[in-house]
Amino acid sequence: MSLAPWRSRLTRALHRNRSLRESRYFQLATVTPEGTPANRTVVFRGFRDNTNQLQIVTDARSEKISDLQQHPQAEICWYFTKSREQFRLRGNVCLITAQSASFSSLRQTLWQQLSDNARLQFVWPHPKAERTQGEDAFTNSFPSQEIPPDTFVVLLFFPQQVDYLLLKGNPQNRYLYWLDEAENWSVKEVNP
Amino acid sequence: MSLAPWRSRLTRALHRNRSLRESRYFQLATVTPEGTPANRTVVFRGFRDNTNQLQIVTDARSEKISDLQQHPQAEICWYFTKSREQFRLRGNVCLITAQSASFSSLRQTLWQQLSDNARLQFVWPHPKAERTQGEDAFTNSFPSQEIPPDTFVVLLFFPQQVDYLLLKGNPQNRYLYWLDEAENWSVKEVNP
Repeated sequence: MSLAPWRSRLTRALHRNRSLRESRYFQLATVTPEGTPANRTVVFRGFRDNTNQLQIVTDARSEKISDLQQHPQAEICWYFTKSREQFRLRGNVCLITAQSASFSSLRQTLWQQLSDNARLQFVWPHPKAERTQGEDAFTNSFPSQEIPPDTFVVLLFFPQQVDYLLLKGNPQNRYLYWLDEAENWSVKEVNP
Repeated sequence: MSLAPWRSRLTRALHRNRSLRESRYFQLATVTPEGTPANRTVVFRGFRDNTNQLQIVTDARSEKISDLQQHPQAEICWYFTKSREQFRLRGNVCLITAQSASFSSLRQTLWQQLSDNARLQFVWPHPKAERTQGEDAFTNSFPSQEIPPDTFVVLLFFPQQVDYLLLKGNPQNRYLYWLDEAENWSVKEVNP
């Protein structure tokens, strides 16, 4: 598989904005089982080797899991504040859980790459449940650095369409990229 | 109507992050007519006077209009980079168009508050259509500063639930706010 033509723009944006920690955060929109939109900030965990697939990690107990089990489509909105560029990536998400037959080594690698503090969150009490426990419940019992717990899930995002907007310029510059049925990327310039 | 309890947190976040232009941008997720998620950055245009309703302006020709006509629900994800706070606001959107019987004076006021450059975009060629025209097509013919063109639409966002996360602290702090049937706001602390 060849790298998509929007990848060079994204690589450049990541480089230009590298001084900002939040340049590696983006907003992931999903559809809930009730058919309503949900939206939250997540951390970009890199591309899967030599592919256009974006890696995200999350907790199996979070609501985005049930959203994606019912509606695998998602849209990422990634705004780079310093270079004033927006990437909207539309695509499908594949969930890699402890039960998944494939990608288990990828799941283990991403687990091992997390910081201790990031790993700790996967053994915390249930997210979004009423807070009844003191700080101790959140700091005890570091999990294994080698073997991910069942709560650790990898989201593999497969882009199918990218809407790129560069706010600089008059007018601004906007390009649409899409994956055709033969799995080739096309591009056209559109009005902002 | 009284101000919601999450408003003071949001006001403080806007103040603490006021040095950053992008602190007034957030991501608005909607559901397309096909039932898939869409997500884009928009500009916060303030609260409607003495209410909890957020104001956004957009072009009648943009795809979020057809999304919201079919599915009025939306979720805003608003991440403040400096203070490391996230507000997820779930609610419904009311469209105020040139044809709307109500809120026409609000629509006119918001139009008048825009910069000349922002107003100009509403008379540009059709957004997302193939770019076939030169720069002239985007810079000619300033619209009236008084009377909004038909392309100018106000989105009034009515929050029904707010999920607030403060990334500082160990563990992080998270609160859920929701509007009950009597239109009162409740709050509880939850696990991050």
